[in-house]
Amino acid sequence: MFKECLENVKSSTPLIHCITNYVTVNDVANVLLACGGSPIMADEPDEAEDITAICNGLDINIGTLNKRTINSMLIAGKKANEMSKVVLLDPVGAGASKLRTETAVKLMDEIKFDVIRGNVSEFKALALGCTSTRGVDAGSADKVSNNNLDEMVKYAKDFARSTHSIIAITGAIDLVADENTCYCIRNGRPEMCKITGTGCQLSGIIAAYVAANKENKLEAAAAAVCLMGYAGELAFERLAPEEGNIAYRGKIIDAIYNMTGEMLERGAKYEIR
Amino acid sequence: MFKECLENVKSSTPLIHCITNYVTVNDVANVLLACGGSPIMADEPDEAEDITAICNGLDINIGTLNKRTINSMLIAGKKANEMSKVVLLDPVGAGASKLRTETAVKLMDEIKFDVIRGNVSEFKALALGCTSTRGVDAGSADKVSNNNLDEMVKYAKDFARSTHSIIAITGAIDLVADENTCYCIRNGRPEMCKITGTGCQLSGIIAAYVAANKENKLEAAAAAVCLMGYAGELAFERLAPEEGNIAYRGKIIDAIYNMTGEMLERGAKYEIR
Amino acid sequence: MFKECLENVKSSTPLIHCITNYVTVNDVANVLLACGGSPIMADEPDEAEDITAICNGLDINIGTLNKRTINSMLIAGKKANEMSKVVLLDPVGAGASKLRTETAVKLMDEIKFDVIRGNVSEFKALALGCTSTRGVDAGSADKVSNNNLDEMVKYAKDFARSTHSIIAITGAIDLVADENTCYCIRNGRPEMCKITGTGCQLSGIIAAYVAANKENKLEAAAAAVCLMGYAGELAFERLAPEEGNIAYRGKIIDAIYNMTGEMLERGAKYEIR
Repeated sequence: MFKECLENVKSSTPLIHCITNYVTVNDVANVLLACGGSPIMADEPDEAEDITAICNGLDINIGTLNKRTINSMLIAGKKANEMSKVVLLDPVGAGASKLRTETAVKLMDEIKFDVIRGNVSEFKALALGCTSTRGVDAGSADKVSNNNLDEMVKYAKDFARSTHSIIAITGAIDLVADENTCYCIRNGRPEMCKITGTGCQLSGIIAAYVAANKENKLEAAAAAVCLMGYAGELAFERLAPEEGNIAYRGKIIDAIYNMTGEMLERGAKYEIR
Repeated sequence: MFKECLENVKSSTPLIHCITNYVTVNDVANVLLACGGSPIMADEPDEAEDITAICNGLDINIGTLNKRTINSMLIAGKKANEMSKVVLLDPVGAGASKLRTETAVKLMDEIKFDVIRGNVSEFKALALGCTSTRGVDAGSADKVSNNNLDEMVKYAKDFARSTHSIIAITGAIDLVADENTCYCIRNGRPEMCKITGTGCQLSGIIAAYVAANKENKLEAAAAAVCLMGYAGELAFERLAPEEGNIAYRGKIIDAIYNMTGEMLERGAKYEIR
Repeated sequence: MFKECLENVKSSTPLIHCITNYVTVNDVANVLLACGGSPIMADEPDEAEDITAICNGLDINIGTLNKRTINSMLIAGKKANEMSKVVLLDPVGAGASKLRTETAVKLMDEIKFDVIRGNVSEFKALALGCTSTRGVDAGSADKVSNNNLDEMVKYAKDFARSTHSIIAITGAIDLVADENTCYCIRNGRPEMCKITGTGCQLSGIIAAYVAANKENKLEAAAAAVCLMGYAGELAFERLAPEEGNIAYRGKIIDAIYNMTGEMLERGAKYEIR
């Protein structure tokens, strides 16, 4: 039940260590608070282990990576694995530079991720670069649509099988899959792409949801994706004609702040394949 | 008079050099502008002295410290002391990692701070780590309440005496103390904790208030704490049911923007012990 | 026609590589999306070339420069020149520290900028420091006004001639000049100075406008300046009495989001000298 996933976050207040980009970090912190979690940002190698050790989950986002923070990501990720804390990878911009692709691949080689969240392009870049995922073929897709849904569901499950991670491929239709089961989610609005960092925010939320629902990780990740998308729908209805992407950004986070388990159950639009 | 403290900020526009975390830095800059000050952020060691030299105050916040910026904090802090500029320390997360605690202690050992602002946990971590404050005992407190108010007032005064700093311990009840006098402030709303960075914002405001009221530092710091809390009360009344922490964040800063000396005098709720 | 400049941005979605300060980076990203462009932030030397290579323009802003990012600015700028991509310099705080002035000058020596955008003080610091601009004299001006408009128009054109760049000097009256032609723009509101980063935002927008209008760079830069200023006017009219700089910041970006070519044509207030 998504309702229970949401309520477990609100009752346990999972503390999430975010090593994330400086573009959207404030929104990630506020959306974590809005959904019922608690953020701590720390990216210096010397304190990465200490901070991960006191947290319930770790969110690694390579959006503005540099050599120092890449080092912190590796240290924190290994510590999280060692202590069985939830770890999520958001491979922002994998494929856009050699450094990003190689870093994402290195992280996947050295850390066991509970969840990897990205868009189709990023997953394709990972699949090309990463030994374990090489040969996991998304064909010519650059997005998930009704036309290629079967193919993409299989792709997500194959990717999940080869990485032992939950795979969240977000876009017009979102897929959240382990090797056996895939949630196909139809919440959200296209206008969310006009806000920077909705993906980064979602990664933070997923980390909190999975950390607070460790017995039920796949469903928790799917609940988080539905939450973000449904909040995007509610917020869109509340926009006045003269409002734009800044008002929309605020209203989405505010909708998450006010979301109850019952609302999420009613608003979630998905099928399981 | 808090009124004069506020008006001195608005008339003199103190320029505050902030070496602060990248999570909340935009809010700190905007709240400094809102209260009548002016921000400049600079964290490269090579320019730390130059920037401090042209400013009226320095706000050091260790929220996302790294080795480079720690170096800048030390350089800028010493320069500020040398030139008798106001310096504030916000020891964000002291106690959460060895690096944070040790950095805060090192800063306190090498720099004379006009104000140190944090929560009870952070002060307890400083007291454990720092030679000069070792033995300043907050007992088992993890917050200031009516039950332990006498004890905590004494703690704040003792801490102020041993560090020669104004001590601002913020929480449900805020304490602003020098060695002889303690303002016990009851402004604010618990919902302010659901916004990232209200503490960082307050530190920036205190730096501006103290820099603009150098003959009257303790009262200026207390006025700043009342300002933030009272703005939190005004903003809360203006929230619509569907609004959440993002709307609240904006409305608090906007309330600070529109605050007059008379409003602050009327809204401030404190006693002096 | 400004209308066409705006529509070219919306139809071509220029991707802008921003190496910019962490204070205002989120607003820069969102305003780029609002105006019809697309942002990518990347400041690690190892990926600077790769990212510039896939973009349509590069926005270099020294607001929170450090040694690592200065290196990235140089690498990315040279790559942009090599590939004939649009490059803009925003010399934030030139004059405030030796490092900033010297870095801006070094960038101007090693990179050919399509546009340089700053305020009068920053341009005067550049003129003092930079061989090619030494002797370009703004007299005693610290702002552009009706009293010194002729002098400042000549200054902007001289600066443009000596640097082979479009010069955008923003203030109460904005000047956008190449060596022959100067747009004198009277859009905007003084209250925009109470928001951190309106200058940084404008630099991002100019980069997008010029990148999408490469045959018509001067007019595109002027259109971008009018866009920002006119959005500032529209947003100001929409402010409620209890609103302040945070509401204003959001409403400006939202006004940019909803701006059409026709609106911009109607609202732009400028003369050409």
